[in-house]
Amino acid sequence: MASEVAEEWAQGTFKLSPNDEDIHTANERRLKELIGETAGKLHTGRSRNDQVVTDLRLWMRQTCSTLSGLLWELIRTMVDRAEAERDVLFPGYTHLQRAQPIRWSHWILSHAVALTRDSERLLEVRKRINVLPLGSGAIAGNPLSVDRELLRAELNFGAITLNSMDATSERDFVAEFLFWASLCMTHLSRMAEDLILYCTKEFSFVQLSDAYSTGSSLMPQKKNPDSLELIRSKAGRVFGRCAGLLMTLKGLPSTYNKDLQEDKEAVFEVSDTMSAVLQVATGVISTLQIHRENMGQALSPDMLATDLAYYLVRKGMPFRQAHEASGKAVFMAETKGVALNELSLQELQTISPLFSGDVSCVWDYGHSVEQYGALGGTARSSVDWQIRQVRALLQTQQA
Amino acid sequence: MASEVAEEWAQGTFKLSPNDEDIHTANERRLKELIGETAGKLHTGRSRNDQVVTDLRLWMRQTCSTLSGLLWELIRTMVDRAEAERDVLFPGYTHLQRAQPIRWSHWILSHAVALTRDSERLLEVRKRINVLPLGSGAIAGNPLSVDRELLRAELNFGAITLNSMDATSERDFVAEFLFWASLCMTHLSRMAEDLILYCTKEFSFVQLSDAYSTGSSLMPQKKNPDSLELIRSKAGRVFGRCAGLLMTLKGLPSTYNKDLQEDKEAVFEVSDTMSAVLQVATGVISTLQIHRENMGQALSPDMLATDLAYYLVRKGMPFRQAHEASGKAVFMAETKGVALNELSLQELQTISPLFSGDVSCVWDYGHSVEQYGALGGTARSSVDWQIRQVRALLQTQQA
Amino acid sequence: MASEVAEEWAQGTFKLSPNDEDIHTANERRLKELIGETAGKLHTGRSRNDQVVTDLRLWMRQTCSTLSGLLWELIRTMVDRAEAERDVLFPGYTHLQRAQPIRWSHWILSHAVALTRDSERLLEVRKRINVLPLGSGAIAGNPLSVDRELLRAELNFGAITLNSMDATSERDFVAEFLFWASLCMTHLSRMAEDLILYCTKEFSFVQLSDAYSTGSSLMPQKKNPDSLELIRSKAGRVFGRCAGLLMTLKGLPSTYNKDLQEDKEAVFEVSDTMSAVLQVATGVISTLQIHRENMGQALSPDMLATDLAYYLVRKGMPFRQAHEASGKAVFMAETKGVALNELSLQELQTISPLFSGDVSCVWDYGHSVEQYGALGGTARSSVDWQIRQVRALLQTQQA
Amino acid sequence: MASEVAEEWAQGTFKLSPNDEDIHTANERRLKELIGETAGKLHTGRSRNDQVVTDLRLWMRQTCSTLSGLLWELIRTMVDRAEAERDVLFPGYTHLQRAQPIRWSHWILSHAVALTRDSERLLEVRKRINVLPLGSGAIAGNPLSVDRELLRAELNFGAITLNSMDATSERDFVAEFLFWASLCMTHLSRMAEDLILYCTKEFSFVQLSDAYSTGSSLMPQKKNPDSLELIRSKAGRVFGRCAGLLMTLKGLPSTYNKDLQEDKEAVFEVSDTMSAVLQVATGVISTLQIHRENMGQALSPDMLATDLAYYLVRKGMPFRQAHEASGKAVFMAETKGVALNELSLQELQTISPLFSGDVSCVWDYGHSVEQYGALGGTARSSVDWQIRQVRALLQTQQA
Repeated sequence: MASEVAEEWAQGTFKLSPNDEDIHTANERRLKELIGETAGKLHTGRSRNDQVVTDLRLWMRQTCSTLSGLLWELIRTMVDRAEAERDVLFPGYTHLQRAQPIRWSHWILSHAVALTRDSERLLEVRKRINVLPLGSGAIAGNPLSVDRELLRAELNFGAITLNSMDATSERDFVAEFLFWASLCMTHLSRMAEDLILYCTKEFSFVQLSDAYSTGSSLMPQKKNPDSLELIRSKAGRVFGRCAGLLMTLKGLPSTYNKDLQEDKEAVFEVSDTMSAVLQVATGVISTLQIHRENMGQALSPDMLATDLAYYLVRKGMPFRQAHEASGKAVFMAETKGVALNELSLQELQTISPLFSGDVSCVWDYGHSVEQYGALGGTARSSVDWQIRQVRALLQTQQA
Repeated sequence: MASEVAEEWAQGTFKLSPNDEDIHTANERRLKELIGETAGKLHTGRSRNDQVVTDLRLWMRQTCSTLSGLLWELIRTMVDRAEAERDVLFPGYTHLQRAQPIRWSHWILSHAVALTRDSERLLEVRKRINVLPLGSGAIAGNPLSVDRELLRAELNFGAITLNSMDATSERDFVAEFLFWASLCMTHLSRMAEDLILYCTKEFSFVQLSDAYSTGSSLMPQKKNPDSLELIRSKAGRVFGRCAGLLMTLKGLPSTYNKDLQEDKEAVFEVSDTMSAVLQVATGVISTLQIHRENMGQALSPDMLATDLAYYLVRKGMPFRQAHEASGKAVFMAETKGVALNELSLQELQTISPLFSGDVSCVWDYGHSVEQYGALGGTARSSVDWQIRQVRALLQTQQA
Repeated sequence: MASEVAEEWAQGTFKLSPNDEDIHTANERRLKELIGETAGKLHTGRSRNDQVVTDLRLWMRQTCSTLSGLLWELIRTMVDRAEAERDVLFPGYTHLQRAQPIRWSHWILSHAVALTRDSERLLEVRKRINVLPLGSGAIAGNPLSVDRELLRAELNFGAITLNSMDATSERDFVAEFLFWASLCMTHLSRMAEDLILYCTKEFSFVQLSDAYSTGSSLMPQKKNPDSLELIRSKAGRVFGRCAGLLMTLKGLPSTYNKDLQEDKEAVFEVSDTMSAVLQVATGVISTLQIHRENMGQALSPDMLATDLAYYLVRKGMPFRQAHEASGKAVFMAETKGVALNELSLQELQTISPLFSGDVSCVWDYGHSVEQYGALGGTARSSVDWQIRQVRALLQTQQA
Repeated sequence: MASEVAEEWAQGTFKLSPNDEDIHTANERRLKELIGETAGKLHTGRSRNDQVVTDLRLWMRQTCSTLSGLLWELIRTMVDRAEAERDVLFPGYTHLQRAQPIRWSHWILSHAVALTRDSERLLEVRKRINVLPLGSGAIAGNPLSVDRELLRAELNFGAITLNSMDATSERDFVAEFLFWASLCMTHLSRMAEDLILYCTKEFSFVQLSDAYSTGSSLMPQKKNPDSLELIRSKAGRVFGRCAGLLMTLKGLPSTYNKDLQEDKEAVFEVSDTMSAVLQVATGVISTLQIHRENMGQALSPDMLATDLAYYLVRKGMPFRQAHEASGKAVFMAETKGVALNELSLQELQTISPLFSGDVSCVWDYGHSVEQYGALGGTARSSVDWQIRQVRALLQTQQA
């Protein structure tokens, strides 16, 4: 008969009554209609306190799996793109100032790698969600010698909770989930910020597809990166939920207090938001157009000043002096009003006699990035290594 | 000569110069004084960006070990106490209303079990702290083919970072640490709240030792639980640092921006706070006096109403009806102005014919708690099981 | 024809079309159906940017008035109760330790006075909400010489915004409103905490009416203060929205960005929450039963130790010495195992010769509270003064 | 003799003893050394609870005055600059996309106007700080008929607190101050974000003076906007303190609890931060160099598309159609690969016959901004009006 009730839920024919306090009493009421007073046995050895938290854990472990899938999809999309566009160079920035030439793929991977940590963390959170509190009663435990290990096995949980008072009132797994989402959103907000900048007329490195941008009610020439702005903004909303829950928990007496009821709306809203944001991010990345030419043109010889210093280092000069020498070259070029690579060999040699004809190869951007071959760098071999590493991680996590 | 500089630091004889920008340039300047221009090689292939984050990770992994130790000490103190005072019963509360008789040890363990999750999480955070960014340069990586795996092995890190742009600018490990502390403080704030209540005249279950309480400048009769109030209050401060860092990170362009400099003060303050709070909590728990008599007197027959229902359940009545029957007994006792256990058998039998002479054993508090023998419950066997579980966890984590 | 559209909205007959982007385009579309292309003039000199923020301000100024009304209702209920129960004494606590006898009305007023500050702040927030941005366009202003002062007068705003870029993108008034709600909720959470304690078996000072408490699915004897716990918990939720919005705003480039869209859900949710919480609080306070006898019995002579010190001060002893003398008396009573007021005059005189027969009146609780007659104290005259002050404030604010 | 103690503090000769609990007991101890036991009268009618909060209010009202002064200095600096550079045009952005030509002064004023609200709010916060709690004792009030109105007048407070329980334990004024700082920092973070963008190579609108930027340890060509990044980052730190305090306050029982001790460090840190940030912001604004030529060159004809629509509106076309017509012109220009202003009159007339020869004046940027003459717009007259308004506000507030 329990299966008949389940069937009604599955078919959408279960009729709620206004007197049903919650899902558990509704089921018991329906069962009573079908089989009589025996239905009253359903609540034996249970309490709303342990039931509600079991429900929430069941729901959240499913949600974690869904979100993991969406996150992997996003990472995969990014890695595929990184692999395909591995030969595109553009400026790397620190402090938003042009710093050194890097591969576009290196930028993509910098964000993908951050997301792999979110993926790892989500698995850890799921592990702590996947612990069964059923059999804790309201506070003291279960008085009917229920076999909690059997319940665990049947409901496919990874472990059982250790203490009934803690089990019914701890919401660590909720707080952890909300913080997981907050940190993940922080990553996505930073990626969105980069892309919003790259979408400006001034940078013009990328262009959003029409599906992910919007026109203006006043300015017909505009194309606004609404999708990215929404991603960026959601970091605030999601973190607000995390902050709210922690404030609710702080200083609460132990065991169940009604305050804990605040957990569910937070979880539902954040789950919905994460699901939407991950899908939008995947859509943005997979449909983004890049302007290779603009990217290339944004590279300028002054971004090679570090390489110029390393040229001298390779000739034996201590780095500190080489850095100074390179700085002098930058200053000389500025003073003369020419680009750094337009200084003649003679001019360079006034700075250091170590400069010789082979300095010319410093000015090649492709040559520049290939120097950064140590693991994690922007050389092609290193970028390929990164791609392999992230792919391997995904495979491990999905196992 | 590097070892000579190290020796100066160890001896406290290293003299800082006002021109030293940071620890790295100070060391290089000193080395230069000792060995000349060759010292300028020290910064080769490095950048402040990867150095600073390496320093922070070194510092934090040490801190995590220290805090783990303090946390274990606190848990151990609690478990020892739980073992020693296993036969003390007192009221368990939900919604701060007296609910069911429980073991005092069950209460202690409810908080200790929460702290074991903090301990588990701290190890996970430490794992992600213990990843080496050195060799990432400022953004593009290292151009001199440095062997990052060798650096990792020499500095005893668990892994190397995957992407140089991410490595120099991600502060996930800081955010995770601050959140770890926030959640741990939430646990301690809840334990403190319970104890503050138990210290009141009205509850009078426990008494703080003089070392952990304070007098009043106005009211000579008072003994205030200052130590517990401070523990409770620090939850706010610590979480504030976590909130602050996340807000700083939100929407930041990728790679290093000076904003990231906010990370260190947050980490230092939170580390100091956690260290102090964990030690104070250990001190409070180990010196706390309990008033067994008051605890026992606070138990009242109405707290056995649930057991009365289970009595009927054991006689075959469905729980829902048994809950109602028990409710009727509570109401009857209230109406008659007697305690629940003062209802005569005849009176009980007007509610259900299933009541018989053996109902008298329901009114024994010791008998009550022993029913809750399912794992995680408040029966002695289950409390012993909990103690063994927590001890085993500690042993695993310390390994 | 515009009035015809308004009439449709009023009647609930306005039919939304799936292509309507927002309320403004829906109105324009409907007007076009009624009067043709001329409807296209409706958007002249406007932008969604200034329209949306005008809408929000209109909605919020109405909400502020509603919430002000509910807040006044709560304060009035509290003051009425304070006036009616002015002669009930009970323990005042600091650090949750019994401190000094106070009037129950003094406690009520301590929370009412906090709420008058919320009321004052809400009026200030409303003043800043009540500023008209219309005529700011998307960013540059209005190109058709619209008379913004006329618009202001017609829409009954208090002022116009000063700068079109700021006007369309500042959300100070939203942040201020959310913070107003957060601080108000902090007050209500503290009052709820007090009342939850006073509802415990251990304190037993008050009893919630059935409408504001709930039974247990497991423990038939229980009556849980759910309403108060929910009030306490909402402080977290509301503050979470405030934190979320500020994080969203932080570091945003100036002028309108889609991120600002996060403002509305926060405002709606917080408004609904505040409205519900204020009404529940009013219901709780107006239906609360107090147990005068328990309150009286909770007073104990040691709470008069301060008064004993002041007795000596009145006899000419410097306070510091009097405090010590009173402390000695407390210690002597403890040692002898008697109540403080059971020390004989001879015993007291071993502590100070200033004690004489009139010390007996120190032991009268009614006499004790009457000493605190300075403004703001717990003497009857001072409590009456407080009532008059709060009533006068309410009258001023409602004017 | 009290004045002798005051003198010692002023001279810096006051010697603290390790036994001094706080400033109040230190003063009493010193006075006792000077005049004997009579010094023990100093604490008469006082409690640490009302003293400490009085001290904090004294300190904070001074701080508010200092911060007001610094804020006014910043606003004044901005307004002066706005007046001086009123004829510089550059692109206004929404969604970081070029939107319409605006005056550079209009941008400056958009941030200055936001700060005037902070200034107004600070005065309101100060008003609520400037309320005297002295005479509230620990909880019940003052038993010696102290004249609190006289104390108020002597200490130059604006009002006295109404209820002694509330007075010693409310920290609204602290929370308000921290939130004031948070919102002000949000404004500064948005201004900093704009300027960081304008400092990029890609925008190149402004250049920080050397005093407010920093070089790179690796890249000699770089000039990083560290000062602006620090301003932006502090928004997080300051808000974290606000969040922390509110979490500490939430759910606290009423009256004084030691938790409240968390207030002071938050206030001190935030005051120091605000003082530094406001001064740095003033320094940045007053020394900033603007690149007028780059600003002018960043204006492009497509930013006049809205003006083109208004051209048609002035010829009688409903705005909605005009917006579409302008959109068609934008599309036509894109298709033909020409700038919007390079479309011939004939081409424009294929879109609408309302175009005639006078359309040419649409393409003048100076003419464009002058259209926005409604109050708050970017026309010169309106910018002048804004400057007058802000100056008048400053004058009122300083009065």
